[in-house]
Amino acid sequence: MLSIIPFIHQLFTDTIHEGDIVVDATLGNGHDSLVLSKLVGDNGKVFAFDIQQEAIDQAKQRFSENNRHNIYTFLKGHELATDILDEHTIDEIDGAIFNLGYLPGSDQQITTTETTTIQAIERLLDRLKSGGHIGIVIYPGHPEGRQEKEAVMDYLRNLSSKIADVAKYEMVNRSERAPFAVVIQKK
Amino acid sequence: MLSIIPFIHQLFTDTIHEGDIVVDATLGNGHDSLVLSKLVGDNGKVFAFDIQQEAIDQAKQRFSENNRHNIYTFLKGHELATDILDEHTIDEIDGAIFNLGYLPGSDQQITTTETTTIQAIERLLDRLKSGGHIGIVIYPGHPEGRQEKEAVMDYLRNLSSKIADVAKYEMVNRSERAPFAVVIQKK
Repeated sequence: MLSIIPFIHQLFTDTIHEGDIVVDATLGNGHDSLVLSKLVGDNGKVFAFDIQQEAIDQAKQRFSENNRHNIYTFLKGHELATDILDEHTIDEIDGAIFNLGYLPGSDQQITTTETTTIQAIERLLDRLKSGGHIGIVIYPGHPEGRQEKEAVMDYLRNLSSKIADVAKYEMVNRSERAPFAVVIQKK
Repeated sequence: MLSIIPFIHQLFTDTIHEGDIVVDATLGNGHDSLVLSKLVGDNGKVFAFDIQQEAIDQAKQRFSENNRHNIYTFLKGHELATDILDEHTIDEIDGAIFNLGYLPGSDQQITTTETTTIQAIERLLDRLKSGGHIGIVIYPGHPEGRQEKEAVMDYLRNLSSKIADVAKYEMVNRSERAPFAVVIQKK
């Protein structure tokens, strides 16, 4: 059975194609961008965002070691991702990934937060092509994460099914604080 | 994005092989058995259970039309499935499916119920090979279904993670009464 992050990666393996343009809304250690980079290939592009220079530096090192040259990193919050897409005259994206919470191994005081996370989802969903997916991994294991989970799930429960389908994939016989995945598919 | 029943069928497409022995715990109209029958092929076997003769008759007609000869139907509740396996000297199964609720298009008074459903899950899990899956579609849209959902989910939440992993796949921006899927993978 797929665990949470492999479930989201499988989604993108099944739906992202050579030449696609995708957004990694939470670059972090760069693992997700690396997966996306290989899926979109040399003709595709990954736009990746993080608010920590430490994350950008580490991730760039990883991309260099893996000889990936199609990932564009930005020291910006993901709520500003669509502004960056505008600057690159990109009207439509093929997919986006969010891996919420804090940078693994770093200062746990710096986390994604509900207001900007929901803004980012709304704005990227607006740019998502019809049939495209946004995958989100949510971590209710820390206090800010629980608050963010409640707010994001409340937003998603109320998202009109005319705009998108939303599915949740979670482990049942684990702590309520275990991470889980959400997939949004635009109509 | 996969909806609920296709999600379960995809699970079996990914994990069931030619020659496998599987159980359809809720034959119903026979759709699931037909899918399983094709996956296990002529060297495999599907053992299918239903408490309604009407379901068995309709399903057999469907199997005949589809030229499937590896599905063995039994007019028995699924809590007795392991007794039937014993009679056929089958110690181990490769997978099982439950599609709970009532027979589509029939008397909605006859539904699966929590006590026998949980008994059936427990007994079939005991026969499941290591790494094998049980897929369950749960329907909280009718009163007995809501009660069954609560009891089954309570049982699954408390299932030791040493015995099995349990995942839930559900639509988020739908009614709380919408069907959802659960997957159990034996350790």
